[in-house]
Amino acid sequence: MKVYLDHAATTPCDERVIAATQPFFGRYYGNASSQHWQGEVARAAVEAARGQVADLIGANAKEIVFTSSGTEANNAALKGVVWGRRDKGNHIITSAIEHHSVLETAKFLEKEGFEVTYLPVDEYGMVSPKDVEKAITERTVLVSVMHANNEVGTIQPIEEIGRLTRARKVYFHTDAVQTVGSVPVDVEKFSADLLSLSAHKLYGPKGVGALYVRKGVFLQSLLHGGDQEGGRRAGTENVAGIVGLGEAARLALQWLKEGAHLEALRDRLIKGILSGASGIKLNGHPVRRLPGNVNVSVEYIEGESMVLHLDAAGIAASSGSACSSTDLKPSHVLLAMGLSHELAHGSLRLSLGKDTSEAEIDRVITVLPGVIGKLRAMSPLAAKKEVVRV
Amino acid sequence: MKVYLDHAATTPCDERVIAATQPFFGRYYGNASSQHWQGEVARAAVEAARGQVADLIGANAKEIVFTSSGTEANNAALKGVVWGRRDKGNHIITSAIEHHSVLETAKFLEKEGFEVTYLPVDEYGMVSPKDVEKAITERTVLVSVMHANNEVGTIQPIEEIGRLTRARKVYFHTDAVQTVGSVPVDVEKFSADLLSLSAHKLYGPKGVGALYVRKGVFLQSLLHGGDQEGGRRAGTENVAGIVGLGEAARLALQWLKEGAHLEALRDRLIKGILSGASGIKLNGHPVRRLPGNVNVSVEYIEGESMVLHLDAAGIAASSGSACSSTDLKPSHVLLAMGLSHELAHGSLRLSLGKDTSEAEIDRVITVLPGVIGKLRAMSPLAAKKEVVRV
Repeated sequence: MKVYLDHAATTPCDERVIAATQPFFGRYYGNASSQHWQGEVARAAVEAARGQVADLIGANAKEIVFTSSGTEANNAALKGVVWGRRDKGNHIITSAIEHHSVLETAKFLEKEGFEVTYLPVDEYGMVSPKDVEKAITERTVLVSVMHANNEVGTIQPIEEIGRLTRARKVYFHTDAVQTVGSVPVDVEKFSADLLSLSAHKLYGPKGVGALYVRKGVFLQSLLHGGDQEGGRRAGTENVAGIVGLGEAARLALQWLKEGAHLEALRDRLIKGILSGASGIKLNGHPVRRLPGNVNVSVEYIEGESMVLHLDAAGIAASSGSACSSTDLKPSHVLLAMGLSHELAHGSLRLSLGKDTSEAEIDRVITVLPGVIGKLRAMSPLAAKKEVVRV
Repeated sequence: MKVYLDHAATTPCDERVIAATQPFFGRYYGNASSQHWQGEVARAAVEAARGQVADLIGANAKEIVFTSSGTEANNAALKGVVWGRRDKGNHIITSAIEHHSVLETAKFLEKEGFEVTYLPVDEYGMVSPKDVEKAITERTVLVSVMHANNEVGTIQPIEEIGRLTRARKVYFHTDAVQTVGSVPVDVEKFSADLLSLSAHKLYGPKGVGALYVRKGVFLQSLLHGGDQEGGRRAGTENVAGIVGLGEAARLALQWLKEGAHLEALRDRLIKGILSGASGIKLNGHPVRRLPGNVNVSVEYIEGESMVLHLDAAGIAASSGSACSSTDLKPSHVLLAMGLSHELAHGSLRLSLGKDTSEAEIDRVITVLPGVIGKLRAMSPLAAKKEVVRV
């Protein structure tokens, strides 16, 4: 039995998405900028997808800029806005637990002369709207706080942050890569000026994402060249990928309307894990968390080792984000939440998807205690009990 | 009969490319950074494709950075190199006939304080290596000259330019988006430090390209975030797209080894067009041109009108590049070659592909004179004979 519980890293393409994209490889292969029948078909398909993406997040089609990924959307949101507002100020506010594509972009902008405030989070990974408010100055041009964290699943008080940034006339960007398709997302309710999303997190293809840019917000293009995407992003449109994102958005909207069902499975998994072995701590908010996210720290053992042993048992999991899986640093998210280095190293993320079954959950609940027991038996840390207890 | 002669804008995905990508949507959907079986499969597929792309251009696999497009590759090459060399100098040399993704990037860099020399071209669209040499100063950090022009097909003296930039220790980038897969490309022969290519120009999928970065050349990442692509380009790998590019590269190498066959068809088309009506001029070099490129200027009529009328007859063509098809400016390439505004407006590009047949060529030769005759009959310019004769 193979169990895939790494949906936060990526999701399988829905078969209806695959079917929707197929004609745009070999048959309708036109360049959407071409002035002939092949171009027309491609252009119409791109525009239909733009409408589908807009519908999912309560935007207008013209406010959607297709990108190659969530990472590109985040880069474009930060760099594209602040470069164009240098006359207004050079201060950016974000949080300590953002995805690397926001944090590394912010660090790059610091080198370019911008000042960045990295807001702290509480023990559950929550950003305080009051902290946002206090941090805003006359020089602040952008606030970027993610909708939900990719590692621990904590959902931020985004509507409050949006309201207060709007009141202070500061642009507000939210990285909604983890939430679009999982929970309702509405740019109006969020008072968002910019919002990032990625197709492969919602059963669409990899290599395509989108940035919502509110009408009237000037976005300096990150990629210079042709006048695609209304001059906001150059490069031949990835027609098949965009069609796939559109279909994934349509399916997600339908799924969300039918009512989510992942919370019960998630809570079953959390309960099962916590009762299966001692010395395990749930990371992230107990209630305000993504329906598909489980993140625990396990005393005395490394997350990486658990992932490898679970893999051997046919269970795909992760220890933090996939994007930073190759370095061995402890999670910046868990450290920001106040966890010790040892517990931050001992984190395991299990992320559920729309096809996750109860049988799969029960399989993990059965297998995990054995993996933990085996690793603890080998752990010099466990022998010395050197780790701060959870 | 539908005739597609816009392969310079984009090509259909080869059915073997489509087949190669298929498993990576719904079955092997892993994030290539994940530490479990799904991640391993994805990672192996990406690395295999990296080798295939490297093989096509005579590079080492580690020197290939996957991007989302040729445009991104060009942006990354210019911005990524010069930003990292600001201590060495701020002068960039390029040509007046580059693709917009190079020219607009160069213009952006001018605003950022760089100095850019735009080299002229001769009547055939050729850059002179002597001009490159003369333009190099102590402050020059990068020379970017395209391998072949996307509009008129002129192939540049890239080996000479490469030799002299190498001798002067200036980095050399070439935009080979139009040539990779069409003619032999070898980064060693070209003495190229950076080279851009795009999958959808060689029967691969849209939304994926690559930048060759010679070992030892530091590339500042354009997209900040995770440490994918050896820290040179953040963002979850577009596994299916990359696999498609790899397969397209493998097929292109095979096809090039078998010997190209487009020149004869191209020359048949040129001859047919020139003898079918009066007042037609071939644009670009008569000999040093892409095997699939035909570009002509037709007196008294607009390229746009020819494209629309040919489309009505089932023939897909273009008037210049697809990337600038929505604005109505005359081609910057043709103007740089010394054509009048009127003749630049009257250009028609017909670009052949590997499946183009003699019957298709003959169809165009038959149809085009009628289109020209009809448009000239309606043309106020033709009535007044106001245009400079070709």
